[in-house]
Amino acid sequence: MSAYNSGIIARVLGNAPLKAGLPPGTPIHVGERKTERVNITVLHYDRHGCREETTEKAEQCRFYHDREGVSWINVDGLHHVDIIEKVSACFKLHPLTVEDICNTTQRPKLDIFDDYLFLVARTQTYDQARGALASDQISIILGKNFLLTFQESPTPIFAGVRHRINSGKGKIRTMGPDYLAYALLDAVVDSYFQTLENLGEEIETLEEEVLSAPRRENAEKIHRLKREMILLRKSVWPMREILNSLLRHDETELIDPAINIYLKDLYDHTIQVIDTVETYRDITAGLLDIYLGSLSNRMNEAIKVLTMFATIFIPLTFIAGVYGMNFDPEASPWNMPELGWTFGYPLVLALMLAVAGGMLYYFKRKGWL
Amino acid sequence: MSAYNSGIIARVLGNAPLKAGLPPGTPIHVGERKTERVNITVLHYDRHGCREETTEKAEQCRFYHDREGVSWINVDGLHHVDIIEKVSACFKLHPLTVEDICNTTQRPKLDIFDDYLFLVARTQTYDQARGALASDQISIILGKNFLLTFQESPTPIFAGVRHRINSGKGKIRTMGPDYLAYALLDAVVDSYFQTLENLGEEIETLEEEVLSAPRRENAEKIHRLKREMILLRKSVWPMREILNSLLRHDETELIDPAINIYLKDLYDHTIQVIDTVETYRDITAGLLDIYLGSLSNRMNEAIKVLTMFATIFIPLTFIAGVYGMNFDPEASPWNMPELGWTFGYPLVLALMLAVAGGMLYYFKRKGWL
Amino acid sequence: MSAYNSGIIARVLGNAPLKAGLPPGTPIHVGERKTERVNITVLHYDRHGCREETTEKAEQCRFYHDREGVSWINVDGLHHVDIIEKVSACFKLHPLTVEDICNTTQRPKLDIFDDYLFLVARTQTYDQARGALASDQISIILGKNFLLTFQESPTPIFAGVRHRINSGKGKIRTMGPDYLAYALLDAVVDSYFQTLENLGEEIETLEEEVLSAPRRENAEKIHRLKREMILLRKSVWPMREILNSLLRHDETELIDPAINIYLKDLYDHTIQVIDTVETYRDITAGLLDIYLGSLSNRMNEAIKVLTMFATIFIPLTFIAGVYGMNFDPEASPWNMPELGWTFGYPLVLALMLAVAGGMLYYFKRKGWL
Amino acid sequence: MSAYNSGIIARVLGNAPLKAGLPPGTPIHVGERKTERVNITVLHYDRHGCREETTEKAEQCRFYHDREGVSWINVDGLHHVDIIEKVSACFKLHPLTVEDICNTTQRPKLDIFDDYLFLVARTQTYDQARGALASDQISIILGKNFLLTFQESPTPIFAGVRHRINSGKGKIRTMGPDYLAYALLDAVVDSYFQTLENLGEEIETLEEEVLSAPRRENAEKIHRLKREMILLRKSVWPMREILNSLLRHDETELIDPAINIYLKDLYDHTIQVIDTVETYRDITAGLLDIYLGSLSNRMNEAIKVLTMFATIFIPLTFIAGVYGMNFDPEASPWNMPELGWTFGYPLVLALMLAVAGGMLYYFKRKGWL
Amino acid sequence: MSAYNSGIIARVLGNAPLKAGLPPGTPIHVGERKTERVNITVLHYDRHGCREETTEKAEQCRFYHDREGVSWINVDGLHHVDIIEKVSACFKLHPLTVEDICNTTQRPKLDIFDDYLFLVARTQTYDQARGALASDQISIILGKNFLLTFQESPTPIFAGVRHRINSGKGKIRTMGPDYLAYALLDAVVDSYFQTLENLGEEIETLEEEVLSAPRRENAEKIHRLKREMILLRKSVWPMREILNSLLRHDETELIDPAINIYLKDLYDHTIQVIDTVETYRDITAGLLDIYLGSLSNRMNEAIKVLTMFATIFIPLTFIAGVYGMNFDPEASPWNMPELGWTFGYPLVLALMLAVAGGMLYYFKRKGWL
Repeated sequence: MSAYNSGIIARVLGNAPLKAGLPPGTPIHVGERKTERVNITVLHYDRHGCREETTEKAEQCRFYHDREGVSWINVDGLHHVDIIEKVSACFKLHPLTVEDICNTTQRPKLDIFDDYLFLVARTQTYDQARGALASDQISIILGKNFLLTFQESPTPIFAGVRHRINSGKGKIRTMGPDYLAYALLDAVVDSYFQTLENLGEEIETLEEEVLSAPRRENAEKIHRLKREMILLRKSVWPMREILNSLLRHDETELIDPAINIYLKDLYDHTIQVIDTVETYRDITAGLLDIYLGSLSNRMNEAIKVLTMFATIFIPLTFIAGVYGMNFDPEASPWNMPELGWTFGYPLVLALMLAVAGGMLYYFKRKGWL
Repeated sequence: MSAYNSGIIARVLGNAPLKAGLPPGTPIHVGERKTERVNITVLHYDRHGCREETTEKAEQCRFYHDREGVSWINVDGLHHVDIIEKVSACFKLHPLTVEDICNTTQRPKLDIFDDYLFLVARTQTYDQARGALASDQISIILGKNFLLTFQESPTPIFAGVRHRINSGKGKIRTMGPDYLAYALLDAVVDSYFQTLENLGEEIETLEEEVLSAPRRENAEKIHRLKREMILLRKSVWPMREILNSLLRHDETELIDPAINIYLKDLYDHTIQVIDTVETYRDITAGLLDIYLGSLSNRMNEAIKVLTMFATIFIPLTFIAGVYGMNFDPEASPWNMPELGWTFGYPLVLALMLAVAGGMLYYFKRKGWL
Repeated sequence: MSAYNSGIIARVLGNAPLKAGLPPGTPIHVGERKTERVNITVLHYDRHGCREETTEKAEQCRFYHDREGVSWINVDGLHHVDIIEKVSACFKLHPLTVEDICNTTQRPKLDIFDDYLFLVARTQTYDQARGALASDQISIILGKNFLLTFQESPTPIFAGVRHRINSGKGKIRTMGPDYLAYALLDAVVDSYFQTLENLGEEIETLEEEVLSAPRRENAEKIHRLKREMILLRKSVWPMREILNSLLRHDETELIDPAINIYLKDLYDHTIQVIDTVETYRDITAGLLDIYLGSLSNRMNEAIKVLTMFATIFIPLTFIAGVYGMNFDPEASPWNMPELGWTFGYPLVLALMLAVAGGMLYYFKRKGWL
Repeated sequence: MSAYNSGIIARVLGNAPLKAGLPPGTPIHVGERKTERVNITVLHYDRHGCREETTEKAEQCRFYHDREGVSWINVDGLHHVDIIEKVSACFKLHPLTVEDICNTTQRPKLDIFDDYLFLVARTQTYDQARGALASDQISIILGKNFLLTFQESPTPIFAGVRHRINSGKGKIRTMGPDYLAYALLDAVVDSYFQTLENLGEEIETLEEEVLSAPRRENAEKIHRLKREMILLRKSVWPMREILNSLLRHDETELIDPAINIYLKDLYDHTIQVIDTVETYRDITAGLLDIYLGSLSNRMNEAIKVLTMFATIFIPLTFIAGVYGMNFDPEASPWNMPELGWTFGYPLVLALMLAVAGGMLYYFKRKGWL
Repeated sequence: MSAYNSGIIARVLGNAPLKAGLPPGTPIHVGERKTERVNITVLHYDRHGCREETTEKAEQCRFYHDREGVSWINVDGLHHVDIIEKVSACFKLHPLTVEDICNTTQRPKLDIFDDYLFLVARTQTYDQARGALASDQISIILGKNFLLTFQESPTPIFAGVRHRINSGKGKIRTMGPDYLAYALLDAVVDSYFQTLENLGEEIETLEEEVLSAPRRENAEKIHRLKREMILLRKSVWPMREILNSLLRHDETELIDPAINIYLKDLYDHTIQVIDTVETYRDITAGLLDIYLGSLSNRMNEAIKVLTMFATIFIPLTFIAGVYGMNFDPEASPWNMPELGWTFGYPLVLALMLAVAGGMLYYFKRKGWL
């Protein structure tokens, strides 16, 4: 679960307000604590081999700052601000960067520093159990020989990349940290496709329900889906700007132009995600209209049934009421002589039938039957 | 039928999620299998003649890589990834291109490589039987002497172009593969006009129904039409960007400036398609309002009828009820002396008539009659 | 009447699909046949004089290709493709231009060729009889010494320009064909003002109706007006781009910079038309809301009347019903002793009055009366 | 009152259509005649003094064309086209300018001529009596030493500026005609603030009404306010473009760069007006939703009251009806033996109470009470 | 409370109209008087120390105009225009600047003068007591060695910055007035986060209410929230443009490029605020739909209950009515012979049960039960 959209709305901003008044560049953990221990994993590799180690001593990271080959240092858990600060110090990160790493309510963005690029990305995975999106913030620092990643909790999203490095599959081991950064962003965008598939299935189920038999809960679900689409959009839209900036990359030399073709491909995928989110939003918005129309329809039907029954039986009941009056036929020949007629009763029944038949004919002509 | 919009929504993304975790550039067939066998057709032509052959040996394509004249290699069926890979190898396509060819959930796009242009287009044809759109992805690779096309199934859309090459009609045989690429894209855009005509007819029929006698199913059809317009728009909108890029073509030398005038014409047609789709969307959106207004109208009418009957007869029934009470006139002269009057009954009937008349007059003045 | 918006929607695209599969540049008449004979009128003028002649021999136009002075060749009727082709050949028009002239479903546009400018404009006139818009396509080809116009039928829109040339009024005879093109476009834009005035009157009438006494047909009329505004907008919006391109005119030398000030004025008028169309659209969209609110209001009123009558009389009828029960007072002193009281009947009537009065007081307090 | 928005919609375009067919540059008065006499006022001033005179001889204006100091010639009343033409001739205005001055349906705009700038602005003042906006067109011609203004009627808006010139307050007398033009535009924009305040008060009153006790007339007022906001926006939006053009002023030397800071300030005010108009539009649009929701609410309430009464009393009336049947107890012991029971009547009354109580409990649980 | 949004709408513009007619640059206090006394606080600091003093003599500020180190002069209370003018005179501010400082209805903006930058910002704090936003205008003038701030009332927002200067925390004392300006703007943007959290909580509470048990007051609260979001957006949106201009800062040398990285960070925060405001707007807009749907739903339910009761009991009551008629069985064997049958009464009761059962079965099949 995520600080980003668990507390639905109010917590969108985490405990950001706590920070008001502090000097800029003061790192404070903003967000939910998602893991117990802070884990530091170092994966050092080059064309020839790869070595992985786990440490808890943040200071040891300083050896990887200028080391030959590519070093990928991953930190899981952001609530121990001092560990984050120590790691950051090893790579001489700017205080504003450290502050942003700790604050898990960031909007995805790209900051270009002299020595490194600072990227914030955001995953949105579909939590089947809760039936809602869960979001994690991932900070990526791309230096000349190293790549730092900071995550709120150990996510399975990067497992594939790690496996490719370990096994030497693909060309990842022959490339620099910029390609690694691309591979990680690619994994993030790929995870959106899974999320979109889950949402798509929900929309499809909902669509069938709304079109066949709308229920009260549908409105709530439509509202929830709309809100999730808004959050998803908010996460993925800035990715586009980030990739656009990376593609122009005239401001930095940390991205090798040879990576361009991969970034362009990733950009296309991001556009596809955005496109699909927009399509889903349009469809979901349409569903609410259908739902409301459907309610109107059922009300219409109920009112027609009521109107038919009432307009047929009310006149009949009135007729019966008339002949239930107790005017005294003996007091005057003008008082309800019908009651004494030979065919009084059958005639009244016939009158009733005629009235009912007339009403039914009228409804038939009106198209209500 | 198409992977793109058959399973309505969830399948918009095909089995894309299967790919998560694989290194970029790994071709996997994403989408529905639409044809049994993979067919490779080679059409080689120049100013003087044209030769067509069908083969199943993908390796033979390598002869056409640098051959004098224009070679159009068309592949129908994308599920045999190894065949796609073999063909691609003959023309030295980038792994990312091969991956995109196999994934039939692409957004239409243009990728500019050093040796070739990679174009993805998407047809949307109206399936009369199912009353829904069916979409096919078409990948076009434009090289110096060759043009590759990859389709999900053999579509009739390119038949006209093939016929023109075979018969030597028009100037197609005197031009290069860039003109061929234009001709194929022109055929794709022309197919949209047919689709728009079909949709336009549906909208027209629906409009008449909604305005004359709205039915419950109309809402569903409006929803479906809206969704199809969204899909259509999603397919055609990127075409505009593609043509725009081709028209600027400062990044590539594969497009002869002489083709420009044709591309500009095609661009205008695409704008016309987009314009019409937008017009249809506006009209369809308006239809839902009319439909909902129509429902309101009918409910209004039913309620008025009910109100009229009820408000006329309820007082009458009440009067009849009063004179149906069994107070004993003999117990006291105060108890219902009317029952014994000479003109009691006629007077009550007159009272009832007066009440009914008064109500009718009131409704008339209110404009309900 | 016009192919553009006669068959309401489906025919927006004319018989465009017929063209699918033909090589580009094949002229086929797309649209309705609006005139019987094809008429060719040549108006040749310069500072000193002017000569007008009508011919049916298309070949004669070739004399005007390079003739001193300004030649305005106007063709009414587009269904004889061979005549169009012959005229076009005289002025060496590109096949794509000829194709577009014949296809009356074009979007207004400007194509810049080496030797001429090709302009497509579209009139929208209000057909009082049918109460709907009728549209005509006008193709204008501006060459160095000549101006060609192709119309679907002889429209009265250009009569004023023709009169000015014949009478030598204004400066038109002292200017080149670029000024003539401007004058014709000015006439087209002026015709939009007339159309807007007609639509404005319709909106005004409709507004009064909807606000005072909404009727079922209003919804239909609002829908129709909205659709017409969409079509109008679709015709006039591209005019703006065309004029913008002409004003920049760095790509062509066929427009004399001295014309600029006139084109700028025309551009302002076009913006004013667009502005007004948008204003009308906003107002019309607002009308639908008012209409729906009005329906709600009337339903509300009907339901209140019903509720008042029902809630007042239902309890009274119930009381009357109670004393209409036939429990036998003689069987037991507990059985309806009221029936035998001296003031039983007056008391019950008083009770009824009290109940009715209480309900009325309640409704008054609720603000329903 | 104004030609611009008096006849509500149809007259938006004045009698513009009358002009169709005339050569461009033919001045015709389009709009309403708002003043009887045409008044020409000349205010000539420089650092040292100021002289004001009123004349009816348009020809006398020619003395001010090149005169030392600043000459402000103001013309009230546009219906005597010949006077306008004479004044214009004195300052060598282009025929298109003269045409636009006379046509009071212009969209605010800026035309840059070689010798002068032509500005059209539009006031929108709130007419308390009619409760509607009234609009006036103001044409400003800024030359090297002179400034011409043409108004439909003598408006009080410029009184402040005139007073400042006469009294020598502020720096206006030390500046050129460009500063005067700025001061006049500033007065126009200031007048919008007054209009906005009036509209804001109306919206506030309406908001209170709609939220507390919505009435039928509210819908009409919301509609009217929306339309006025549309007109206001249409007048003020182009002002922004005009000021933007003046600020860039690379195309003209008639604006002294020292004026820039004032124009920037005026630009900020215009943005503020636009911002406020947009805010008001959003709020007004929201009001309609609240109004419709309020109608629904009241209908809901009425229907609940009806349902409660009906569902409580209908079963009771039915029970009373049963015991009002005339089956003959003497004919058979099966026929209504209850009528003869000792406690028949009290038992039935108790049954009725129980039914009513049950219904009330049900409604309580449903939250309807 | 604030002049900006206290009087809800009408007062958006304060008493701005009072100013109409005055020469530009005339300072007049526009807005509410929020503090009694005008307070001038001077905070002079450099790397080595810091001195704070409070004065009421505006003239003394002139000593700080060119003083070594950084001088921050803060003025609380804007209603004594002469004090503002005196302070402004000390720093040679342009009359237009002074006018804007006094007018508390400014839109946030940046004006670049030769000697200083003039910034207007706007706070929006959530007033828990009133449950509404309160806004204050803050004018910041950034000179070479000094920074002026003008506030409507002493706000707690700048307390943190003042504390950091006094205590020497962070790097603020080592930087120039440009960093101080950044720190103050940062404090303003931070205060928005607090406001957003408060609004977020309100939206969350409202959301729960609307989804579980919608009440009449919800519509009003949604409307109020929407309006507050509009005001918030209006305040924060221009901040983005301001920061964008500062980041480009090619027009001024008052901003040290070293500050850039902080301004970029602040820009990102502003985007995050804007993003969140937009998200909240979308969610709030969705809530209204849910609310209206919910009303429809409840109406639906009430109507169904009514229809069920009415359609079941109306026929039964009619049957009872029939047998309550007083036709005389003795007058003719045709007159209600059922009344004399042995099992007449039980049969009628059975008929009634059958009718009721039939109706219930019908409703079950319809899914109403």
